Amino acid sequence: MNKEELFINPLAEGSRASKPIEPCCLVIFGVTGDLTARKLMPALYNLAKEGQLPLHFTCVGFARRDKNDEIFRNEMKEAVIKHSRTKPLDEKLWENFASKLFYHKSSFDDAEGYKSLNKRLSEMDSTHNTGGNRIYYLATQPSSFTTIIEKLSESKLIYPYEENQSPWSRVIIEKPFGHDLQSAESLQTEITKHLNEKQIYRIDHYLGKEAVQNLLVFRFSNLIFEAIWNQKYIDHVQITVSEDIGIGTRGRFWEETGLLRDMIQNHLIQLLSLIAMEPPVSLDADAIRNEKVKVLEALRPISPEEIDQKVIRGQYTDGFVNGEQAQGYRSEENVDNESSRETFVALEMAIDNWRWAGVPFYLRSGKRLPKKTTEIAIVFEHVPNILFLQNQKKYEQNVLSIRIQPNEGIAFNMNCKVPGIASPIQPVKMDFKYGNYFGLTPPEAYERLICDSILGDSTLFTRGDEVLASWKYIDPILQHWEKNPKEAPATYKAGTWGPVEAEKLLNRSARSWRMI
Amino acid sequence: MNKEELFINPLAEGSRASKPIEPCCLVIFGVTGDLTARKLMPALYNLAKEGQLPLHFTCVGFARRDKNDEIFRNEMKEAVIKHSRTKPLDEKLWENFASKLFYHKSSFDDAEGYKSLNKRLSEMDSTHNTGGNRIYYLATQPSSFTTIIEKLSESKLIYPYEENQSPWSRVIIEKPFGHDLQSAESLQTEITKHLNEKQIYRIDHYLGKEAVQNLLVFRFSNLIFEAIWNQKYIDHVQITVSEDIGIGTRGRFWEETGLLRDMIQNHLIQLLSLIAMEPPVSLDADAIRNEKVKVLEALRPISPEEIDQKVIRGQYTDGFVNGEQAQGYRSEENVDNESSRETFVALEMAIDNWRWAGVPFYLRSGKRLPKKTTEIAIVFEHVPNILFLQNQKKYEQNVLSIRIQPNEGIAFNMNCKVPGIASPIQPVKMDFKYGNYFGLTPPEAYERLICDSILGDSTLFTRGDEVLASWKYIDPILQHWEKNPKEAPATYKAGTWGPVEAEKLLNRSARSWRMI
Repeated sequence: MNKEELFINPLAEGSRASKPIEPCCLVIFGVTGDLTARKLMPALYNLAKEGQLPLHFTCVGFARRDKNDEIFRNEMKEAVIKHSRTKPLDEKLWENFASKLFYHKSSFDDAEGYKSLNKRLSEMDSTHNTGGNRIYYLATQPSSFTTIIEKLSESKLIYPYEENQSPWSRVIIEKPFGHDLQSAESLQTEITKHLNEKQIYRIDHYLGKEAVQNLLVFRFSNLIFEAIWNQKYIDHVQITVSEDIGIGTRGRFWEETGLLRDMIQNHLIQLLSLIAMEPPVSLDADAIRNEKVKVLEALRPISPEEIDQKVIRGQYTDGFVNGEQAQGYRSEENVDNESSRETFVALEMAIDNWRWAGVPFYLRSGKRLPKKTTEIAIVFEHVPNILFLQNQKKYEQNVLSIRIQPNEGIAFNMNCKVPGIASPIQPVKMDFKYGNYFGLTPPEAYERLICDSILGDSTLFTRGDEVLASWKYIDPILQHWEKNPKEAPATYKAGTWGPVEAEKLLNRSARSWRMI
Repeated sequence: MNKEELFINPLAEGSRASKPIEPCCLVIFGVTGDLTARKLMPALYNLAKEGQLPLHFTCVGFARRDKNDEIFRNEMKEAVIKHSRTKPLDEKLWENFASKLFYHKSSFDDAEGYKSLNKRLSEMDSTHNTGGNRIYYLATQPSSFTTIIEKLSESKLIYPYEENQSPWSRVIIEKPFGHDLQSAESLQTEITKHLNEKQIYRIDHYLGKEAVQNLLVFRFSNLIFEAIWNQKYIDHVQITVSEDIGIGTRGRFWEETGLLRDMIQNHLIQLLSLIAMEPPVSLDADAIRNEKVKVLEALRPISPEEIDQKVIRGQYTDGFVNGEQAQGYRSEENVDNESSRETFVALEMAIDNWRWAGVPFYLRSGKRLPKKTTEIAIVFEHVPNILFLQNQKKYEQNVLSIRIQPNEGIAFNMNCKVPGIASPIQPVKMDFKYGNYFGLTPPEAYERLICDSILGDSTLFTRGDEVLASWKYIDPILQHWEKNPKEAPATYKAGTWGPVEAEKLLNRSARSWRMI
């Protein structure tokens, strides 16, 4: 593999290879929060380690708390030591990296803080050759998004957008983007007063994961899959994103949010659109996102009458997870002891287009399930009942399973003959795991996403119309639940795969959830 | 797995499960030959070990040499100890098994010998309850086939055929069936004077191999493969059967035979027909063989003008195989030092039907190649050159490879993204190996074939019209070579993959043989 090949991004080949990594300054708003310590700073450090950061680069932390550059650097060092995927810390590299870290104290609504930020960044353009390029990372509460963008705009920290402009300015917005359709629409309206859509990078960290990116490569560089990727050969699709942990200390947040908003609206629907999309005309960010939006627009809306039947919500009760006792949701800290907030959702979705007519997509996600896993399973049709059949027994359907985590990889369940003179047919698994195969730890999702934002590649970020289309699908469900608060979610014991109703959702059509 | 399931033969489910294993007597003609010691007796012993032989069973060895039952049993014990796939010998089992072995001394053309055989077998029907059922295994030189069958018929050892008859008589005929089209036709004419086609079991031990049998299961119990098993998705097919050994002490035989007759006409063309056949209407032996014959009848005949271009013959010269010096074919014992007999053949075949129009089948086989292996590779079309492409580089085609030996298994080459921020697409292999997966040594081909002949299942034996169709394809090539003896085969060094012309055969259409 020659050096040049190392820099080919298969998701944007051609376009990226010719793109130089430009100098820039990254400003993180809400830098004292958990996200920076756990994800962003380790990601930046590892990017530095792999030579993926621009040569001329600075990172400024923006928050209310009182601290200086040195304290900030020391805190970040602790964070990287604790959370970096590569260990131990490379001290020499760290020193160089830390010299590019700065702390800027200000509240988000203080015009003076932005003014002084502008001054500081301009100085860095001289002292650090950052070239005037800016990325603003909003790692704050969603309630601050509009304020920060307004202030940035007022202080001329956001440049009016032009194509191929230099210097440029971009804004990365953490999830969630809106709390429902209305709030998402109004957030979109507010921020686009100051920003062009091409300057907005909406994070869905699931899109940064290796196996998610590989979905596109896998689908479109292997002939055999594209050939069978439609209603003629696929019986149904299952997408599972499960967590074994409960809501922990985030009771207040969870009571307001619930699983449908926190997981389905963004992560699971993103995965669905990557699986279901038509081949894009190119690998440009917009070509891909155009296809994803087309899928979302083809989602068959769930009518209020169908919701109770097709959208199963669950809430965990006392149980055991990984051999340890776990308390029920209603006993968690800051949770109403009569709460009807869901911690589990399973739903059946339909895509009304030629490729997917008649193929149900089953999505499920929940807290306090038996294990943490993300898996997409493409379940193929049964073979015609002509050969090899006895006693009405059906042979297992072929299944292509794409594991996003843990053990990222791909597996294929196929039927084979067991060796022996008179032996049955049995499903066997062909698979490969990234870890085994390449012997590498795949980079964290945030590394990829930060790197892409510097390069100006928005493929793995969600576009405004995408987010709104997703909310449009989800909103009637939220409204239905709010109008019928008495119909509490079905309960499930912590450590089980959700309420029995979730199983019935598939059993109705003689299907069942895969054992994961 | 319950007991009943253990006896399901996936290649004849339903039909077989209800078939009891009937008592019988197996007579092996030419029992002092190599085949009995190396293959047949170990196969019988292992069948006994796995409870696959009838409770009431005897085996009579028929040959000219002077020996008695006891000597015969001792020789067979040595043979089983040496050649059985299961070790060590189970002494108790052996004792019981050996008590069912008998030796019958006679020449093949001596009517008296058959008369006394008849008497002996009738006695066994009383003493061993073998029920009058007979299997005659012709493990002799082909020149004796007609004589033996005539004599068996004259002595009423072959019963006139009726459907569902009891007792029954069957004849197993070892390969080769004919030396060319004419001799095969006349052999067929001769033996069918005495035998109904349903009483004839023509051996092609390749068909008894696990992975060959699995071909049918694999194709017809997995939806995804049947979907892409045609000219729309398959670019070409490669079938390789290679041996690292030379012709050894069989110089005289080889000078008369050559590789085209010894390997291509039977084994490789059998593999081709299993890969290419349409789904049979049932798993009856005749339903499957009807489909195989249809493939052979659809083979596009090679015109004399095309032969030199499309059929490459090679002959090995001095070289190194597995690090050891190997002499050239012309220096082998009993070989003419100006011999033009081929030890390697590569050819391009076309099947003129809807499924395979435009898909070349490349077959190659040879002695003194780098290793012993049998592999079928289904090479799929290229993906359209739309996405993920840079610098005109083409990504590797998907390949499904079915390994018959060694390491029986199935592998799939697919393209994936190498983990990393900016990383190339690379082919990875998903595979499974019988050995790893089931933790069993698959039974030897002869075990399966003997067992099937007792059960009266002729699925894995070649039918008369099949053999003749294959000779019909091969015969013009043999004739062309005989008419042009001066055009000696291209040479290749022992330990290489055949003459350079074999590579050119594929290179013409920008293809190449797989690295195996």
